[in-house]
Amino acid sequence: MTESTKRRVLITGAGGRIGSHLATTLQDRYSLRLQYHQSIPDQPQVADWVRADIAEYDQIAPAMEGIDAVIHMAGEPSPSATWDEVHTANIIGTRNVYEAARAAGVRKVILASTNHVMGFYDRDGEWPIYVSQEVRPDSLYGVSKAFGEVLGRYYADQHGLAVICLRIGWFLEKPHDDFSRWSWLSERDCTQIVWRALETDKLFGIYYAISNNGGRHWDLTHTIEGLGYRPEDDGELADIP
Amino acid sequence: MTESTKRRVLITGAGGRIGSHLATTLQDRYSLRLQYHQSIPDQPQVADWVRADIAEYDQIAPAMEGIDAVIHMAGEPSPSATWDEVHTANIIGTRNVYEAARAAGVRKVILASTNHVMGFYDRDGEWPIYVSQEVRPDSLYGVSKAFGEVLGRYYADQHGLAVICLRIGWFLEKPHDDFSRWSWLSERDCTQIVWRALETDKLFGIYYAISNNGGRHWDLTHTIEGLGYRPEDDGELADIP
Repeated sequence: MTESTKRRVLITGAGGRIGSHLATTLQDRYSLRLQYHQSIPDQPQVADWVRADIAEYDQIAPAMEGIDAVIHMAGEPSPSATWDEVHTANIIGTRNVYEAARAAGVRKVILASTNHVMGFYDRDGEWPIYVSQEVRPDSLYGVSKAFGEVLGRYYADQHGLAVICLRIGWFLEKPHDDFSRWSWLSERDCTQIVWRALETDKLFGIYYAISNNGGRHWDLTHTIEGLGYRPEDDGELADIP
Repeated sequence: MTESTKRRVLITGAGGRIGSHLATTLQDRYSLRLQYHQSIPDQPQVADWVRADIAEYDQIAPAMEGIDAVIHMAGEPSPSATWDEVHTANIIGTRNVYEAARAAGVRKVILASTNHVMGFYDRDGEWPIYVSQEVRPDSLYGVSKAFGEVLGRYYADQHGLAVICLRIGWFLEKPHDDFSRWSWLSERDCTQIVWRALETDKLFGIYYAISNNGGRHWDLTHTIEGLGYRPEDDGELADIP
C-alpha cells in the first residue's frame, strides 16, 4: 500500500515499553502518528508526532485530527500506583481519549487493559479466568482499567465508536519465572494482536492478550475465535534469559 | 434496643429523595447520623447531622468517626448528567466515601447503584437482565455507578470492607406508566432492602432493588436468595395516581 491508502493510526504513550515497540513494528502496515508526554526519544520513529498530556483534553484533542483509529497505550502502568496517579492518567486521561476520538470522528479505540482487572482470582488461585466473569481488580490500577472497559462499552453502544479492550499480560522480551511464563505476551504476539484488533469489524470486545503459554490461567479461545488471533510463542517453551 | 446498643449508621445524601425517606424509616432500628450537602432541612430528622461535600475528602472523613456502616445515597442522580457532574460526585465522591470509611474502621458501605448500569439491555429489549451479565451502561451516570461497584469490589477484596451494591430501580410513591411499574421500588420495599443489606454477613454483592413487580425485567431471585428480601409491593397492581 502507498502511504496515502494506509489507515491513519495514533499510538498514545509511544514513549512507553509497548507503545515504542508498536511504533516500530506497525510502521509498514499503518500510517502512524505518535503521542508522547514526558519521555520523547531523540529520534521519534516516525515524522508525525505530538507532545500532549492525555489528562488535558485540550492537549489531546488536536492529536485526533485525521485519525482513523487510536491505539491507547498511554497511562499509569503500575499495579502499585496510588489513587491520584491512576485517577489522573487512567480515568481522566482515558475519558479524554474516548471523548476526543468521538468528537473527531475516529472510528476505533484499542484500549490497553490488563489481567489486573481480574487479579483477585489470581491471588485466590481461582482459575481459569474468562472475560465473562465479574471483575475482581487487585489494585487501584486494575480498578482504573476496568473503568476504561466500562466507559468503552458506553462509547461503543451510545456513539458507535468501536472499542476493543486487550487485557495485556506481561509484555517482556523473555519470561523470567513461572508467573511471567504463564502471563507472557511476546513482542511479535503483541504486534499481531494489536493489528488483529485494528482489523476486526466488531463494535466492542474484551480479550485476553497473552501468548500461547502452556500453564496459562486466562482464556485464549475467546481471543482466537473473536479476533482471529494466532499466537506464535509459548512462555513455557521460551528460554529463561 | 436502647440508643447505645443500636448500630451507628451514616446516611450520605440525607437531603435527597431516598436519603430523606430512609432517615425517617430507619430511625428506630439504627442510631443515625445524616450527611447533607446543599439542601439541609429546617429540622433534620435526627440531632446527629453534618454538612459535608463528599467530593472533598477532608470534609467527609470526619463524618465517619464512630460509624459502623454507611448508606451511601449522596451523588449525582440524573441519567442525563454530564461527565463533569458524575466525575465529581460519583467517581471522586464515591472513592472518598470508601476510602474515608476504610480509614475510620467502618465495617460496611451500602452503595446506591442503578439499573442504568445495564440500561442498554433495556434499550435493546434484551431481557431478563441478571447481575452476572457484562455491564452495558446507558449513560455517563450509569458508567459512574458501575465504577462504584468495581471500586467497592476492590475495597471488599483488598481491605475487608463489606460492600453491598443495590441497583435501585425507580423510587416513587406510586408508578405512573409501564416502565415505572416494571422498575418500581416502593417506599416500604426500599426501607426493607436497605436494612436487609445492612444485616447480611456477605462481604460483597450486587443486587437488583425493585419491588415484586409483575412485568419486571430484572432478576429478583438473586436478591431474594442473597439478602432474604421479601418485597411487599407490586407495581403492576399499584393504582396509578
